[in-house]
Amino acid sequence: MSIEVLREEFAQTRARSIADCAPLELEDYTLQAAVFASPPKWHLAHTTWFFETFLLKPFVANYKTPNTQYEVLFNSYYNGIGQQHPRDRRGLLSRPGLATVLDYRRHVDEAMAQLLESELAVQNTAIGARCHLGIEHERQHQELLFTDIKYSLAANPLYPAFRSGIPERSSVGPVQWLTFDPGLIEIGHGGQGFSFDNEHPRHAVFVQPFEIADRLVTNGEYQAFVDDGGYQRPELWLADGWATVQDQAWKGPLHWVDRGGDGDRGREHLEFTLHGLIPRDEASPVCHVSGYEADAFARWAGARLPTESEWEWMCQETGEQSSGRDSSDLLHPRSSVGCGACFGACWQWTQSAYGPYPGFRPSDGAIGEYNGKFMSNQWVLRGGSCVTWSSQARPTYRNFFYPQDRWQFSGIRLAR
Amino acid sequence: MSIEVLREEFAQTRARSIADCAPLELEDYTLQAAVFASPPKWHLAHTTWFFETFLLKPFVANYKTPNTQYEVLFNSYYNGIGQQHPRDRRGLLSRPGLATVLDYRRHVDEAMAQLLESELAVQNTAIGARCHLGIEHERQHQELLFTDIKYSLAANPLYPAFRSGIPERSSVGPVQWLTFDPGLIEIGHGGQGFSFDNEHPRHAVFVQPFEIADRLVTNGEYQAFVDDGGYQRPELWLADGWATVQDQAWKGPLHWVDRGGDGDRGREHLEFTLHGLIPRDEASPVCHVSGYEADAFARWAGARLPTESEWEWMCQETGEQSSGRDSSDLLHPRSSVGCGACFGACWQWTQSAYGPYPGFRPSDGAIGEYNGKFMSNQWVLRGGSCVTWSSQARPTYRNFFYPQDRWQFSGIRLAR
Amino acid sequence: MSIEVLREEFAQTRARSIADCAPLELEDYTLQAAVFASPPKWHLAHTTWFFETFLLKPFVANYKTPNTQYEVLFNSYYNGIGQQHPRDRRGLLSRPGLATVLDYRRHVDEAMAQLLESELAVQNTAIGARCHLGIEHERQHQELLFTDIKYSLAANPLYPAFRSGIPERSSVGPVQWLTFDPGLIEIGHGGQGFSFDNEHPRHAVFVQPFEIADRLVTNGEYQAFVDDGGYQRPELWLADGWATVQDQAWKGPLHWVDRGGDGDRGREHLEFTLHGLIPRDEASPVCHVSGYEADAFARWAGARLPTESEWEWMCQETGEQSSGRDSSDLLHPRSSVGCGACFGACWQWTQSAYGPYPGFRPSDGAIGEYNGKFMSNQWVLRGGSCVTWSSQARPTYRNFFYPQDRWQFSGIRLAR
Amino acid sequence: MSIEVLREEFAQTRARSIADCAPLELEDYTLQAAVFASPPKWHLAHTTWFFETFLLKPFVANYKTPNTQYEVLFNSYYNGIGQQHPRDRRGLLSRPGLATVLDYRRHVDEAMAQLLESELAVQNTAIGARCHLGIEHERQHQELLFTDIKYSLAANPLYPAFRSGIPERSSVGPVQWLTFDPGLIEIGHGGQGFSFDNEHPRHAVFVQPFEIADRLVTNGEYQAFVDDGGYQRPELWLADGWATVQDQAWKGPLHWVDRGGDGDRGREHLEFTLHGLIPRDEASPVCHVSGYEADAFARWAGARLPTESEWEWMCQETGEQSSGRDSSDLLHPRSSVGCGACFGACWQWTQSAYGPYPGFRPSDGAIGEYNGKFMSNQWVLRGGSCVTWSSQARPTYRNFFYPQDRWQFSGIRLAR
Repeated sequence: MSIEVLREEFAQTRARSIADCAPLELEDYTLQAAVFASPPKWHLAHTTWFFETFLLKPFVANYKTPNTQYEVLFNSYYNGIGQQHPRDRRGLLSRPGLATVLDYRRHVDEAMAQLLESELAVQNTAIGARCHLGIEHERQHQELLFTDIKYSLAANPLYPAFRSGIPERSSVGPVQWLTFDPGLIEIGHGGQGFSFDNEHPRHAVFVQPFEIADRLVTNGEYQAFVDDGGYQRPELWLADGWATVQDQAWKGPLHWVDRGGDGDRGREHLEFTLHGLIPRDEASPVCHVSGYEADAFARWAGARLPTESEWEWMCQETGEQSSGRDSSDLLHPRSSVGCGACFGACWQWTQSAYGPYPGFRPSDGAIGEYNGKFMSNQWVLRGGSCVTWSSQARPTYRNFFYPQDRWQFSGIRLAR
Repeated sequence: MSIEVLREEFAQTRARSIADCAPLELEDYTLQAAVFASPPKWHLAHTTWFFETFLLKPFVANYKTPNTQYEVLFNSYYNGIGQQHPRDRRGLLSRPGLATVLDYRRHVDEAMAQLLESELAVQNTAIGARCHLGIEHERQHQELLFTDIKYSLAANPLYPAFRSGIPERSSVGPVQWLTFDPGLIEIGHGGQGFSFDNEHPRHAVFVQPFEIADRLVTNGEYQAFVDDGGYQRPELWLADGWATVQDQAWKGPLHWVDRGGDGDRGREHLEFTLHGLIPRDEASPVCHVSGYEADAFARWAGARLPTESEWEWMCQETGEQSSGRDSSDLLHPRSSVGCGACFGACWQWTQSAYGPYPGFRPSDGAIGEYNGKFMSNQWVLRGGSCVTWSSQARPTYRNFFYPQDRWQFSGIRLAR
Repeated sequence: MSIEVLREEFAQTRARSIADCAPLELEDYTLQAAVFASPPKWHLAHTTWFFETFLLKPFVANYKTPNTQYEVLFNSYYNGIGQQHPRDRRGLLSRPGLATVLDYRRHVDEAMAQLLESELAVQNTAIGARCHLGIEHERQHQELLFTDIKYSLAANPLYPAFRSGIPERSSVGPVQWLTFDPGLIEIGHGGQGFSFDNEHPRHAVFVQPFEIADRLVTNGEYQAFVDDGGYQRPELWLADGWATVQDQAWKGPLHWVDRGGDGDRGREHLEFTLHGLIPRDEASPVCHVSGYEADAFARWAGARLPTESEWEWMCQETGEQSSGRDSSDLLHPRSSVGCGACFGACWQWTQSAYGPYPGFRPSDGAIGEYNGKFMSNQWVLRGGSCVTWSSQARPTYRNFFYPQDRWQFSGIRLAR
Repeated sequence: MSIEVLREEFAQTRARSIADCAPLELEDYTLQAAVFASPPKWHLAHTTWFFETFLLKPFVANYKTPNTQYEVLFNSYYNGIGQQHPRDRRGLLSRPGLATVLDYRRHVDEAMAQLLESELAVQNTAIGARCHLGIEHERQHQELLFTDIKYSLAANPLYPAFRSGIPERSSVGPVQWLTFDPGLIEIGHGGQGFSFDNEHPRHAVFVQPFEIADRLVTNGEYQAFVDDGGYQRPELWLADGWATVQDQAWKGPLHWVDRGGDGDRGREHLEFTLHGLIPRDEASPVCHVSGYEADAFARWAGARLPTESEWEWMCQETGEQSSGRDSSDLLHPRSSVGCGACFGACWQWTQSAYGPYPGFRPSDGAIGEYNGKFMSNQWVLRGGSCVTWSSQARPTYRNFFYPQDRWQFSGIRLAR
């Protein structure tokens, strides 16, 4: 990316974070309903901290931070930088107030603008690369901002709406199965364009023959699983998944709300969305399921989850790209129609444990903590959701969450 | 209290709650750093709920609530009314926002004003009595608002100040011991003026001879206990207290902040106050100690905590009254000089378990849950603190907290 | 007690501990189903440790312990002696095996016999006093051995019987109410005979008029409370009690076992006893209820629990003594018929929080930890149960447990 | 395996379980120091239950169990069979006593002997297959019996010895690196002999070039990691591993005991073994490390853990077989010398998450729960330890544990 484009993308990305938050009430900015759901204000500050920590402090000799305590307060998990404010106490930071955090953003934006226009930025390519990483990092947090605030607002019995305009629904038609022969393929990022370290190196993998569904599992199909006693039948579940079902008393996907009726009859089937509580659409992809639920559903359906190699091959074969950004609000539009429907509706659980590709090397220094240290106990998700920034909806992108996590927009694609 | 006075007190009390909150940032209104420390906005709503629930709904035929869900959201612990929003999730209620809560207050205030001016209020004395209870209830919450926000702001490493003007310090001189002979005395509320059900009935108690200190233990005296290894010597502690010291890793009172120095030498002795972090005053009463710490200190000092009978007798004998309200900001000024120095600096732990007086009868209905159901595992505190409303600083008032609690302004008076 | 009687009592008490355990299987000796229910082998070792620690080590110059690690392993809670093996891990001590523990007992018994026959024991009265304390201590543990093994065997779905011959049932007739006028009475131990420090000093108390039931609440009466929704009605409970009911999912007393039937109809009403599972006797006192349950039942019945002063006065007035030991098996027989039926069937919850009598002074040194440090959060129980040693069933004896505890043989007497 | 050999192996395996336990004290048989460490008596009963449940009940028409409650008590985790006694309460089963469990074993052994000599066993090959599975199952539990009792005895401050004759030490020489070219290989079980379902199907995998150490990491090498601050440097650890280090306060491998000395100087380096506490041998493989520790050590050493494909290929290439059984005590002798030293000293952590091979199909019915439902969050270990039965030390055997587990004999082999 040229330095000019970088400056432009930097400015747009930074502006978009503010714009995304606009519909929030001031009291929402500090809200944190679970350890994993950071408050909007914290996202705004942390993404700023990232530029300050990895660009301004190392590369700008006379850079002065507005508050030395921010180094700890807004560090997410970089032990190489130092201590971190406890993750489960981010919602207790009523101060600095929003106005002060916005001042912090402006302060850093101005210093960044100067840096990007300096001679140094032209000479030292590390600056451009780091800045690009910071932009992609902020885009990831823009997605998290949506998932986190959705989770945190759902903790309020008033079920408040955040905003309209997010296409959480997208009806799909009957499923088709795409067929693949065995073969030695290559996966991982190998070409131009931005990528994270965990997408490297591109390498050969031998894949057995498989079939894969051309669209995601729907709310209606998942309801059939629930109605068939899916949450009461241990034989459908991984042992750890079944323990989680018991422990968390799960009865259905997160954000499904059933109410009224007499027993199971006549119950109203709703779901909580960023627009508030609305009727569930049977034909839209089921969302907010954990990896365990995805796996159990697949077993019930006589299928299984795809591996990440299978998913990436499918994507290569169907030639699908994410359909680009939506100019009106910068949100990624769902491309849920297509050979593979790879991107847009929901992240798609794979059965692949998140681990290093053969020959993987994390970046040097604290920035090497970005991806590598999470390579245990998590599962890979592929694709992208209705709140994913378009540039990240690429075939090689590896998202990862614990199999019990379900506050992301995560759904199910079947393989067999 | 005449209906005219009641109207006036009602209006003043309601106005004061708003005024007390004025120095808060909007983001502070939803802050809750522990289950016991309710957010300011919740206090504003709950005190309103109290009038709505116990006066408007029963006595105003056509009363209409602005939101039926408030009945659950702002119910503190009245099972007789119904379900309650979980106490540890009050800080997750970013909505209703402050503006909406202030609307709720105005709505109830107007309905209350009408009720208090109605013929019914003159005829039915229960209305005046309930209203008076609601006023005293709100004054209790005004105190809690200060203690809770102090606790919640202390959870922020920036140690933000709330406001100035609260007299948290008050130097005292050398201690004198007041001597009492044995005798059959009477304790409990027996005269005019407002009282809670738990102060009744007034009854005879036989008290053995005792001595009691004429002022509270100071920071300097407590520091000597700490320096003498008080927190490492199990023989000074009740068994449950020692377990708490270990479990909570207590090293000193809540809100004491020591920093800098080399080991114990040269450390700066600070304390967090509503004004922010300030140097500790050696001659002021130690505050924010638990009952366990008060008890351990007393044992170390070769003394003990007084019983509530002894305390009340002292108060009767010294004839001390709370010194009235401070006209400038309605806060109760500390009368820390006086024969007994009963009121003002800190609540004073007694060794008495909080239980029913002989013949105690709680009020009928849900309002009977006000005090009676808490009569286990808690200890009585007497007196009043720098944030207690003056009308509640009376000799017979029984405050009660768990012996491990220390977020109130609670200190130590010795007896022997 | 003369030194000759002391020798005799020592020998008998020590022998009885072994005899009480005789019906156990060897595998039962290490069993611990909860932190509070120590294994039989641990009781055998700890009571031995008590004599070793408080008599042999201080008074016998050349005393040699068989294993220096026992000082830690079998210390219950005496911080003044040093570290303790964690209380919740006593059941993990498969070694030392029973044979080794019995060797330890013999070793200490022989050294004690020598000490008690020495000139020193005649000269130094502290030795006799300590030895007497050790004997009473072992008798307390003999009771705990029964309650603990009952609890631990109940954790086994096979419901194994321990032994026969314990009179857990004793039918009672209709209740009578004994009436008392107000007055200044004296409570506490003042006469001859053994007593614990917490029964001192004898002191005056002013008691209001009251009535008290002449027998304990029965299983049948308690069943009526259950059937009336007692465990679903928060208004009957103390707040902490209600929280415990929810948290522990209590539906009835500990050791009640209901099974079979269709819903509530036709269910078999059983209880687990030291003899195994047997039908419940409606006319026998209800047992194994917590203080919270006792309090809630009393409220439901329009009554309350007595204070410890009231109970002790009743006992003084009815002139009841415990009916002496049963020569056949040394167990205390229940004297459940009598004016007050003070002793025998169950310990009786009072509403009195366990605290120091006015002027209480614990013993010096580590032995002062025996009673004094537990004077918070617990409630006093009076009387004695079917497994209490007769010498401890005296009017002034103060037993104490947390209000949530219910593995003791604890029942309910009403007052009003 | 012919039916004759099967009868012989059955008898020998069943006898060996009893023989292995012989050095235990009776009190040890019920010992359970953690949820994962089952008591010896439970292992004896559960392995019996396996034959009863999967052979006698389905195939012997008139089979009668000695106690119908055993179906629940000794079910480990087979939801398809029904309820299970809670895993963390196995140590509370003092009853049935050992004698009764041995009766149960004899009862089942006799019924099994009859079945294996019946005509049916010749006709129905499922019986032989199931019986073989039961034998291998019991051999797995024989290994667990050693690891579990080692863990549970280590919870006793007396550090009691279990028995002699287990070769826990085996010095090794300098490390050599074996080199492998890239290639498409096959892994998984494909030949004759017993195997578990999770070793199937044999399938092609493409492996990148790698080097792998010809022996395991030693105590001395691991000590250097500890001395270099390994447990204080988050950059060496996976994020979940680092959280575990903090949470569990790990300072070194399980069963390492350091004591005495002045700070780090002059400390005695011991380890707890089945023989009791002995000096650590610097040249023997480090054992009882978790997957997280193995991974962190590898990162510190500039290497990584092998994948299971790499490990299996190494084993194929070096042609190593386990060296057969030791006739004297049936324990598997360590073959720690050899090209790859694949078997004997310790299980070897791989970096591979435990998942299904492509095309994996679990067995039908409850027996399908044997392996398949554990395919999440666990890591594969390969090889075998000093307490592994020789027949299970095969190149394709996939052992699996959570990365935080370390009570198995688990060590480290490096790759790069």
